Amino acid sequence: MAAISESPVYRATTTAPVNIAVIKYWGKRDATLNLPTNSSLSVTLSQRSLRTLTTASCSANYPAADELTLNGKSQDIQSSKRTLACLASLRAHRQELENTDSSLPKLSALPLRIVSENNFPTAAGLASSAAGFAALVRAVADLYKLPQSPTELSRIARQGSGSACRSLMGGYVAWRAGELADGSDSLAEEVASQAHWPEMRALILVVSAEKKDVPSTTGMQTTVATSELFATRANAVVPARMTAIERAIQNRDFPTFAEITMRDSNGFHATCLDSWPPIFYMNDVSRAAVRLVHDINNAVGRNVCAYTFDAGPNAVIYYLEKDSEIVAGTFRSILGTELEGWSGPFYDAVKDIGSGVSLDQVDSRAVHVLKTGLSRVILTGVGEGPVSVEDHLVGEKGEILSTQ
Amino acid sequence: MAAISESPVYRATTTAPVNIAVIKYWGKRDATLNLPTNSSLSVTLSQRSLRTLTTASCSANYPAADELTLNGKSQDIQSSKRTLACLASLRAHRQELENTDSSLPKLSALPLRIVSENNFPTAAGLASSAAGFAALVRAVADLYKLPQSPTELSRIARQGSGSACRSLMGGYVAWRAGELADGSDSLAEEVASQAHWPEMRALILVVSAEKKDVPSTTGMQTTVATSELFATRANAVVPARMTAIERAIQNRDFPTFAEITMRDSNGFHATCLDSWPPIFYMNDVSRAAVRLVHDINNAVGRNVCAYTFDAGPNAVIYYLEKDSEIVAGTFRSILGTELEGWSGPFYDAVKDIGSGVSLDQVDSRAVHVLKTGLSRVILTGVGEGPVSVEDHLVGEKGEILSTQ
Repeated sequence: MAAISESPVYRATTTAPVNIAVIKYWGKRDATLNLPTNSSLSVTLSQRSLRTLTTASCSANYPAADELTLNGKSQDIQSSKRTLACLASLRAHRQELENTDSSLPKLSALPLRIVSENNFPTAAGLASSAAGFAALVRAVADLYKLPQSPTELSRIARQGSGSACRSLMGGYVAWRAGELADGSDSLAEEVASQAHWPEMRALILVVSAEKKDVPSTTGMQTTVATSELFATRANAVVPARMTAIERAIQNRDFPTFAEITMRDSNGFHATCLDSWPPIFYMNDVSRAAVRLVHDINNAVGRNVCAYTFDAGPNAVIYYLEKDSEIVAGTFRSILGTELEGWSGPFYDAVKDIGSGVSLDQVDSRAVHVLKTGLSRVILTGVGEGPVSVEDHLVGEKGEILSTQ
Repeated sequence: MAAISESPVYRATTTAPVNIAVIKYWGKRDATLNLPTNSSLSVTLSQRSLRTLTTASCSANYPAADELTLNGKSQDIQSSKRTLACLASLRAHRQELENTDSSLPKLSALPLRIVSENNFPTAAGLASSAAGFAALVRAVADLYKLPQSPTELSRIARQGSGSACRSLMGGYVAWRAGELADGSDSLAEEVASQAHWPEMRALILVVSAEKKDVPSTTGMQTTVATSELFATRANAVVPARMTAIERAIQNRDFPTFAEITMRDSNGFHATCLDSWPPIFYMNDVSRAAVRLVHDINNAVGRNVCAYTFDAGPNAVIYYLEKDSEIVAGTFRSILGTELEGWSGPFYDAVKDIGSGVSLDQVDSRAVHVLKTGLSRVILTGVGEGPVSVEDHLVGEKGEILSTQ
């Protein structure tokens, strides 16, 4: 009896970035399809600092059920409706290709083995689901050699995690809420590339671990259902801000970009506080970061930095590279270089900066609160979208590898 | 040469209470007349715990300029437009009386000497201006024997400090925003007396001193001018809540009263956060109080207590006397009796209560934050309006006395 010949293992590997919204996604008009109540806009952060690496593979050698391994841990894929929805859509697209070109291998019929790793600790409190689902969708789309554009793929990634649709592109990305009930017009698109405004930097202040108040999916449903101020935000305030911030991005107008970013973060957290029961994501450390950003802007007489807060206490502070000394220099001077995270490519480029504005010009109580309330910083900047790479997390014979 | 005969010293003395709003006053449509953007409603707190004592006197013996002494300190009355406005209105009313009855002494022509003392420390962070202006207006109106009702006098007190108009009455008091440009229909009225619902209690959690973020007059103007959510609150949300909470008070329906109170406090602070630049009055200690109130309510399965926060971090927690053990007992068990303020007539009546809900049922982090973040408590309840008393702070010959 001849040895059974091994079937081939097909592989594709991609990286995908984290994105941080400046106009916040908060509220679903359809929870199953992940359709939002309002459009949102984010900055894609550089994968030189933060990225998910994902290999999608398929082979007739694999067990019949699809497999997913995240950060070394096998996941129960059947219990994740969102993952199943993404994979079903991707397989359907592959099947269309196979139906029109019978010479193609029937990959849609093969079990998948997907392996994914983040290069940043979950403990950093950064939403990893956006990068994770973007990488999963991009990797499987590459494995299947799908012709769909990133915007078309965003419709699939959105079903995994709403904000994931914005991680399929680099630079400045809008997620259009859309109007159709089936969500087919709820798509992400690049409103400006990284190259249009490459000077954008982001300093992430990671607040010492505290359990999240309310998970974001639950939180946004509570807000939509109970906040009496929310409809005004979704229907009137955000649409005007989307128009204004897109114009600011086109014009590389940082002061306007900054004000809209800060106001939208505040307005989002205001609707959380107005929810019933109320939701608090910002704490006293977050408030100290807000105060210091306003103090720095007041000290220099223009908006050189802007804070934004997602569904947690961490601050992300945007600024332009030319203002690195005023912004990163001031925060480094406040926080001290002993704090973890003053490292990496974006820091190496500016590490000789001075100490920024005089600490006489900023609130001393806020300095104390911030100094004692952070676990680390991450210095990064605007970056590109997913990149196809050869660092496979699945070997040629289908074995799971690890970069860790 | 005969001795110059001394002219008489006319005197009247009143006490006035503090009030704590459950539907918040935030926003002026006219800053000079102190006309609000929305109606508000408060509970008058018992003067057995907190009160201002004010004597108004007048005499031809006094120097020509009106004088005001607050807590032992002479005030520059000419620099306080608000005080001048109140005194001018009161004098005009007296003059009307004198014009119609020539037998009356011409008090309106005499210099005033007003002396006022609070029985609570300014450091307690309780807004003393409401009680102060209510006492001033009530005392001068008594001195002048004005026939105006408390509601008519509220028009005058409002010009001193908006919320002062609600301290001219006891029980449950609404301040109707009114519509007229001259403010003549912007008046306070008792919607229910203390006797209608005497069981209401208030536990004030005084947060360890921290400088106020933004004074309330400046803060509310910022909110009106900049918050994109504020108009929805003022025009739609508050009017509906006023109707609903008045009904809850009429029906002595505490669970409904509680929910509206908490939601309105949250909504008010939401519009502060939505202001530009953002205004934060609540801090992590305030958030801990919010959490514990929700935990206590969840533990017993109904709203037995309700928090509300003014323009500062202190929590006022309303509850009914029958739930003293569940509410005051739990907070006493959390805070310990070493903390200042577990005393006074309202405490004496319940000091044998047990320890309330099990601390296993409340958030342990919130317990820790609250335990370490308060400077004292004040246990009080709903009370009556200003009371005419004989404890004059000005002697028979016009000399300033003191109770302190």
